[in-house]
Amino acid sequence: STSYGVGSQARSISVEALKPNDTFPRRHNSATPEEQTKMAEYCGFDNLDSLIDATVPKSIRLDSMKFSKFDEGLTESQMIAHMKNLESKNKVFKSYIGMGYYNTSVPPVILRNIMENPAWYTQYTPYQAEISQGRLESLLNFQTMITDLTGLPMSNASLLDEGTAAAEAMAMCNNIQKGKKKTFIIASNCHPQTFDICKTRADGFDLKVVAADLKDIDYKSGDVCGVLVQYPGTEGEVLDYAEFVKNAHAHGVKVVMASDLLALTMLKPPGEFGADIVVGSAQRFGVPMGYGGPHAAFLATSQEYKRMMPGRIIGVSVDSSGKPALRMAMQTREQHIRRDKATSNICTAQALLANMAAMYAVYHGPEGLKTIAQRVHGLAGALALGLKKLGTEVQELPFFDTVKVKCADANAIADAAYKNEINLRIVDKHTITVAFDETTTLDDVDKLFKVFACGKPVPFSAASLAPEVQTAVPSGLIRESPILSHPIFNTYHTEHELLRYIHKLQSKDLSLCHSMIPLGSCTMKLNATTEMMPVTWPGFTDIHPFVPIEQAQGYQEMFTDLGDLLCALTGFDSFSLQPNAGAAGEYAGLMVIRAYHLARGDHHRNVCIIPVSAHGTNPASAAMCGMKIVAVGTDAKGNINIEELRKAAEVNRDNLSALMVTYPSTHGVYEEGIDEICKIIHENGGQVYMDGANMNAQVGLTSPGFIGADVCHLNLHKTFCIPHGGGGPGMGPIGVKKHLAPFLPSHPVVPTGGIPAPDQTNPLGTISAAPWGSALILPISYTYIAMMGSKGLTDASKIAILNANYMAKRLESYFPVLFRGVNGTVAHEFIVDLRGFKNTAGIEPEDVAKRLMDYGFHAPTMSWPVPGTLMIEPTESESKAEMDRFCDAMISIREEIAEIEKGKADIHNNVLKGAPHPPSLLMGDAWTKPYSRDYAAFPASWLRTSKFWPSTGRVDNVYGDRNLTCTLLPASQYTEEPAAATA
Amino acid sequence: STSYGVGSQARSISVEALKPNDTFPRRHNSATPEEQTKMAEYCGFDNLDSLIDATVPKSIRLDSMKFSKFDEGLTESQMIAHMKNLESKNKVFKSYIGMGYYNTSVPPVILRNIMENPAWYTQYTPYQAEISQGRLESLLNFQTMITDLTGLPMSNASLLDEGTAAAEAMAMCNNIQKGKKKTFIIASNCHPQTFDICKTRADGFDLKVVAADLKDIDYKSGDVCGVLVQYPGTEGEVLDYAEFVKNAHAHGVKVVMASDLLALTMLKPPGEFGADIVVGSAQRFGVPMGYGGPHAAFLATSQEYKRMMPGRIIGVSVDSSGKPALRMAMQTREQHIRRDKATSNICTAQALLANMAAMYAVYHGPEGLKTIAQRVHGLAGALALGLKKLGTEVQELPFFDTVKVKCADANAIADAAYKNEINLRIVDKHTITVAFDETTTLDDVDKLFKVFACGKPVPFSAASLAPEVQTAVPSGLIRESPILSHPIFNTYHTEHELLRYIHKLQSKDLSLCHSMIPLGSCTMKLNATTEMMPVTWPGFTDIHPFVPIEQAQGYQEMFTDLGDLLCALTGFDSFSLQPNAGAAGEYAGLMVIRAYHLARGDHHRNVCIIPVSAHGTNPASAAMCGMKIVAVGTDAKGNINIEELRKAAEVNRDNLSALMVTYPSTHGVYEEGIDEICKIIHENGGQVYMDGANMNAQVGLTSPGFIGADVCHLNLHKTFCIPHGGGGPGMGPIGVKKHLAPFLPSHPVVPTGGIPAPDQTNPLGTISAAPWGSALILPISYTYIAMMGSKGLTDASKIAILNANYMAKRLESYFPVLFRGVNGTVAHEFIVDLRGFKNTAGIEPEDVAKRLMDYGFHAPTMSWPVPGTLMIEPTESESKAEMDRFCDAMISIREEIAEIEKGKADIHNNVLKGAPHPPSLLMGDAWTKPYSRDYAAFPASWLRTSKFWPSTGRVDNVYGDRNLTCTLLPASQYTEEPAAATA
Ligand SMILES: Cc1ncc(COP(=O)(O)O)c(C=O)c1O
Ligand SMILES: Cc1ncc(COP(=O)(O)O)c(C=O)c1O
Ligand SMILES: O=C([O-])O
Repeated sequence: STSYGVGSQARSISVEALKPNDTFPRRHNSATPEEQTKMAEYCGFDNLDSLIDATVPKSIRLDSMKFSKFDEGLTESQMIAHMKNLESKNKVFKSYIGMGYYNTSVPPVILRNIMENPAWYTQYTPYQAEISQGRLESLLNFQTMITDLTGLPMSNASLLDEGTAAAEAMAMCNNIQKGKKKTFIIASNCHPQTFDICKTRADGFDLKVVAADLKDIDYKSGDVCGVLVQYPGTEGEVLDYAEFVKNAHAHGVKVVMASDLLALTMLKPPGEFGADIVVGSAQRFGVPMGYGGPHAAFLATSQEYKRMMPGRIIGVSVDSSGKPALRMAMQTREQHIRRDKATSNICTAQALLANMAAMYAVYHGPEGLKTIAQRVHGLAGALALGLKKLGTEVQELPFFDTVKVKCADANAIADAAYKNEINLRIVDKHTITVAFDETTTLDDVDKLFKVFACGKPVPFSAASLAPEVQTAVPSGLIRESPILSHPIFNTYHTEHELLRYIHKLQSKDLSLCHSMIPLGSCTMKLNATTEMMPVTWPGFTDIHPFVPIEQAQGYQEMFTDLGDLLCALTGFDSFSLQPNAGAAGEYAGLMVIRAYHLARGDHHRNVCIIPVSAHGTNPASAAMCGMKIVAVGTDAKGNINIEELRKAAEVNRDNLSALMVTYPSTHGVYEEGIDEICKIIHENGGQVYMDGANMNAQVGLTSPGFIGADVCHLNLHKTFCIPHGGGGPGMGPIGVKKHLAPFLPSHPVVPTGGIPAPDQTNPLGTISAAPWGSALILPISYTYIAMMGSKGLTDASKIAILNANYMAKRLESYFPVLFRGVNGTVAHEFIVDLRGFKNTAGIEPEDVAKRLMDYGFHAPTMSWPVPGTLMIEPTESESKAEMDRFCDAMISIREEIAEIEKGKADIHNNVLKGAPHPPSLLMGDAWTKPYSRDYAAFPASWLRTSKFWPSTGRVDNVYGDRNLTCTLLPASQYTEEPAAATA
Repeated sequence: STSYGVGSQARSISVEALKPNDTFPRRHNSATPEEQTKMAEYCGFDNLDSLIDATVPKSIRLDSMKFSKFDEGLTESQMIAHMKNLESKNKVFKSYIGMGYYNTSVPPVILRNIMENPAWYTQYTPYQAEISQGRLESLLNFQTMITDLTGLPMSNASLLDEGTAAAEAMAMCNNIQKGKKKTFIIASNCHPQTFDICKTRADGFDLKVVAADLKDIDYKSGDVCGVLVQYPGTEGEVLDYAEFVKNAHAHGVKVVMASDLLALTMLKPPGEFGADIVVGSAQRFGVPMGYGGPHAAFLATSQEYKRMMPGRIIGVSVDSSGKPALRMAMQTREQHIRRDKATSNICTAQALLANMAAMYAVYHGPEGLKTIAQRVHGLAGALALGLKKLGTEVQELPFFDTVKVKCADANAIADAAYKNEINLRIVDKHTITVAFDETTTLDDVDKLFKVFACGKPVPFSAASLAPEVQTAVPSGLIRESPILSHPIFNTYHTEHELLRYIHKLQSKDLSLCHSMIPLGSCTMKLNATTEMMPVTWPGFTDIHPFVPIEQAQGYQEMFTDLGDLLCALTGFDSFSLQPNAGAAGEYAGLMVIRAYHLARGDHHRNVCIIPVSAHGTNPASAAMCGMKIVAVGTDAKGNINIEELRKAAEVNRDNLSALMVTYPSTHGVYEEGIDEICKIIHENGGQVYMDGANMNAQVGLTSPGFIGADVCHLNLHKTFCIPHGGGGPGMGPIGVKKHLAPFLPSHPVVPTGGIPAPDQTNPLGTISAAPWGSALILPISYTYIAMMGSKGLTDASKIAILNANYMAKRLESYFPVLFRGVNGTVAHEFIVDLRGFKNTAGIEPEDVAKRLMDYGFHAPTMSWPVPGTLMIEPTESESKAEMDRFCDAMISIREEIAEIEKGKADIHNNVLKGAPHPPSLLMGDAWTKPYSRDYAAFPASWLRTSKFWPSTGRVDNVYGDRNLTCTLLPASQYTEEPAAATA
């Protein structure tokens, strides 16, 4: 003992006790050793380890896990020191590379109060509308901003990046044409990464992507479904697309325009040219470059195609009292419904970044944004003018922020720039482009003059040129239509006003700052502050994704170590960090398998077996790869029906491409037959794709590689602590066995591939716009792993399982617990069955979910994977006290249901059907409910000391979908309700 | 015009439009130029400037203000770049200097969610208890922690620093002895700065401070009121004070112990020795050193002396429904009541830092703290053992964390350390001390071995020594009594738990994140994020206050520039940055005046004239300087009665020391006679002390120096943007005219003085424990000034005045507005008179204040400076919309009062008397109020979209003071209320 206190005889000290004290695992994993034993005993086991032994099948159990680095785990302060060191290895140069990424000034009030605020970043996707009205409003602001700026009336609430947004638009064109026209043309003025992503994506849709110079485009084949152009072009030119669009439409071709929000504040919007779909990135609206992401991409379209839009869409509806209330519209569109008919698999998107971009527009307002745009344009104009005076040839086409320069030796110029810590884009041997952004200054322009002058004197300064600078945009392309005229974009322009607006929205949203969010399959664990801190350090935020690699040595070192650690964690041989969401990982993983079969000449292998219990993104991803989906069922215990699987595999043995399997299953069980399942697939020539969403039940106990999977994605925003951000960001890197490593995605601008790198490469193409996806948030997972060490991580898995079993035990006599393993335990999550209550009490899962809000809780995952159930996942970082409160709430709700069953409460008008109960309702003068206000509001004792209030009554989904409104209601409809009349 | 848009013919651009766009003044000053004109017109003026001309007396109006640096103002990103540059000039060495300052690991969850969270740092002092229950609980945790660790039952809720806490304790001893014993002994084992502060402070109380070696102390004179000892001593020794205390008590001498919280987790507490008062700093409990502050000091005492404790004290009471509720106890003790009988002037304290320290204890819990203490002690033990093995002589007395080393040449050792980026304390030529802290590692100890070995090989490592290390504390001094046994200190030990606890408390507290806090005399303006960001950068946080000055070049450069800027702003010649609150500034300023008179042989000059309208700290400060206070009255217009003043000055001309005057007056008027007033004082041999609390109405328009003041303090936490932190931190630097500059305070460890430095120095002594006070928060004021530039700051003053006049105009037909200037305008704040309602409706200001909470607002300053009134100060950063909402609320409340006047509402039972209305009350099943729930809850339309809820009913002050409880109720009394019974 190291104690000097009472009763301790020890007067000497151990080395152990002298080690640094700010260890992390005990802050993350909640249960103390004593609690672990108590809880295991409660579940009928002697201790935690025997519970784990009984739960995880022996056949797949790993002896131990060991890291070559960080095995013991760093303390929090050691971690911060380590990250500071990595940060210092990234060199922040001035980047004028453009290509969809621009430096931006993140307004500090947004940085601190959204990006660095757990009350925003730990929110979940706003499926539970009544406790999410704040971010729903912010996302509606985003949609309104996008529709205003693009000139098209419908927008979604973000996509993953500009490149994949273009690919989504391509799929929409294919759909609009009902799959009958199989060519998609991409103009050569598009960003190279956009081209490559579309090209990769086209394969699965059996589309042919054709690159063409704008002037060479023709539609004679009659087979063209759509065409993609960039506005302004990747090399800066601003063209008038009016005739172009007319011509395309005349040929029945849909026009997709990739565009730039800042440019659109002063340029004629695509909608006015008649574009059908507009995509782009909202990054430069106050979201750091972060070496590639995360950023919110957008997609806008016309009313006609609104129901074909991919991604989440926020809409206006009404609540139970008829007041306007927001919610996610058309949720029936989510992948789990479309499954194999899906043409998009997007699930996690970029909500947090969309919120930041929307707030940036709220803060600057229309005039502020235009001022910024004009300034950037003016500086670009000054550069162009000065270069001409220096005798340098500058492209004569109109431009917005990017100047295209002809030079004798582009490399020599770029080298000179480099010496001045400046990055330029080399287009070809004789061409350079210089893209400006809101952080560019007159000084910067002067420095560029020096670079281009190659040692000759520069007889002027940018400032001295200003009076001569003229706008480079012809008046016909100048925007005349107003933007952002809604009051929300014209009110909060001081810091106090924006601060309060952000906090007002925040106060309506439940997050992990309030209580556990026990969402099965979502792993809402602690997102620790130490993990989040490096994410907003300038050495990580201010790096353009296409800088020369030696400027990002801190990042690169982290990628290498993270790749190694993830391999150690998963039993794989190589990782790609490119996919920027789980579903993107699925798609990438299946494409790896596809590439593998193709490389072996197995062109016919296109059957993908998927259990019916799979997450909707699984079949959607397979469909996007052009695979034929064969479903297999599950047995009563939640296990895949192995005989059915065997049959499916054997029947399809010649064409079998892959199995997609989630482990532990989406039913919350460790299937004992998993190794056999893998064997069956392999024996029939298939590859095993494992969905890593449930990795939190594997780490340190088993691994996908050990089990027999060939590929797996990891949702870093689940198991590895990236916060969900209200619906994104996330990261979905994929790990593969050696034979698949050559096929991992690359990138057209910065070649990349597996980490560790395989001997050979034969990349499948490009998956995301940035080489390493959303690199900026990788420090979160990296620090989590490095601080936990191998033991901390293994303990996390064990405690996650313990916690789920503890809760299942507490609830099992009140609710049937569906699906258990052979020894009666569950995995890290479990399903409670509410189906019976429909008959006995008229109660649906939604009623329970809404009533839980009155108890201060977010509902578990509702009606997935089994309709009529709730799936509960506590994670290792929830305390026993918190789980007990949640169980008490569930048990109390069970009693409320019993009141109905006993006829004591009205079946149509009871405390569940009436839930949630916002203050406006509870304090209304008229109270006509058959139950008491007090009981509606304070059904549990802990609510008396502090309660999170839902801000609306139950939101009407049907009304909202029938009357689809996806932008802010006009100000006139926002007239606030009157104050209460005097007593 | 720079616009390229519709209607604009301009096709070229101005240099102006190419300048960086992230300018700050428009984010801080709310009213746009158009609004300024409209609002001025509403007030009856053509424009803002004519309103200002009519308001600020011509005779004192400055033509213009100009800075030699930052005159145009930096943009936000330029500011951050500048601060990064300053930060890089501070060198973060390992400091083992001790002396009351220790490095600490700030738990990241506390850093982000309290120190970097505007919802915590923008709170005001919790005078309005019902909307402050969160921080009241946290401060009660602080008090409980202090009483537990010191072993004394009563604690206040923080003092400014350890040195001034000791001085407060000295004053208490003097009081306890009824001023009859005039010697205070300070043991030589106290920190030197503590000694100097007490010595300085003693002067005003006519006390004699005697330094004495512990063994030489004797009380024979019979004149000793108290004795101060340090435990552990400044050089590390841990002594058994049992006999010492007995002996002192036997002589009727009170014992003050300065102690260390971390040591007290393992040492016998002072209370068990019988100490009467314990003081110390809570810095090392998770508050960065910050080059000296801010940190929370503490003072604990016995029940007997509780009503003599200085500072704010949180106590438990009950609310209107009888439930436990917290509030500041014994508010009648505040300085404004005691005035010239006061013996302490403390007002702003260190609430935010006390909260951080308390949360640190909550997070670590008793076991965690003991583990940290034992580790620190163990490492110190390892050092001592190793040094002995190296043949170095180590003091043999017991120690906790500080090892005292004898060496041939202390300077040589310290130099060697310095080369290794290590700071040691040189006690004398042959003595060095090494003080360890929670960030010290085994590695660090090894490095120290190398330093002390002077090039000789070290044949062991700290780790290898560990098994031999024995505790250096004799068992008789080991703590046996338990600490922190309350559940609050034993529950929130994981990050999720603490995060939620912090957010739960936060959700009960109104801050500037919610709405304006229009506190007259408090200037609750925007605390902008850019200003706050540098405050938590390591290059500013991790610097010990006593490091060699060349390690703090970034700080020093900032001090120099800040001194210059403040001189430019105030018209003074030199500034001292040492006083760490406004009242400390007052005291320091008066002491400067005193020193000046003394230096001229004017020992008799001790009369201080103070208007009756002065803030209570003014007479309290004067009393602490031993001055005789002469009050002068004000006339009906709120102006000082000049004839009365003249008489008082003339009558006292031989003994006149100073006038204390606030300008504009605390009544919110620019007295036209201010220059005459200054003249009268000067003519009668006095000096003019100006209270700078209202500086926000002067900046750029006039200045204290220009008006004729000789000294002035600036509350940087008012005019210069340091947030109030729920009752501190603050800073109160003083500016002086040339003739006073030599007397500015110095410091015994790091000599300091006026900035810019005067030619000669003759310092009055020491005012604060750290040379430059709370240096860490100076970047806030510095960045504010640097970003605003001279024009932005002048505009701020103008708009602050405009806003006050706009509000006064809106309210004047509903409430009498007391006091106006000659042209009918008010200054930057104004007073509305509620006294009439007492008779017409039985309504007191408190009723209006509490009802304002129902409207979502914090009350204005209540019943000060005029009883029965409210004083409203909007500041320049409140928007017209926000002010309109506040005025609407006030007007609506006026209508509610009218209902009573008309007999429509019950005089005893109405919506004002019932206020505030917390949800628990509004949703109770029983509603017996004569007014409606809806009206109680939603009296204004804006509340429907989002409302801040008070968390208790009206708190009963009288009950709480009668039943004084200033620590957490035992857990048994915390049993949560039951849930509502089933419907
Ligand atoms: C089992 C499973 N697979 C895949 C996904 C999709 O991942 P993402 O949302 O990151 O695209 C999810 C998301 O919750 C999931 O639960
Ligand atoms: C007029 C006036 N003088 C002095 C003070 C005391 O300043 P501090 O609270 O910083 O000690 C105040 C505080 O509100 C004040 O209003
Ligand atoms: O959105 C999810 O299905 O997690």
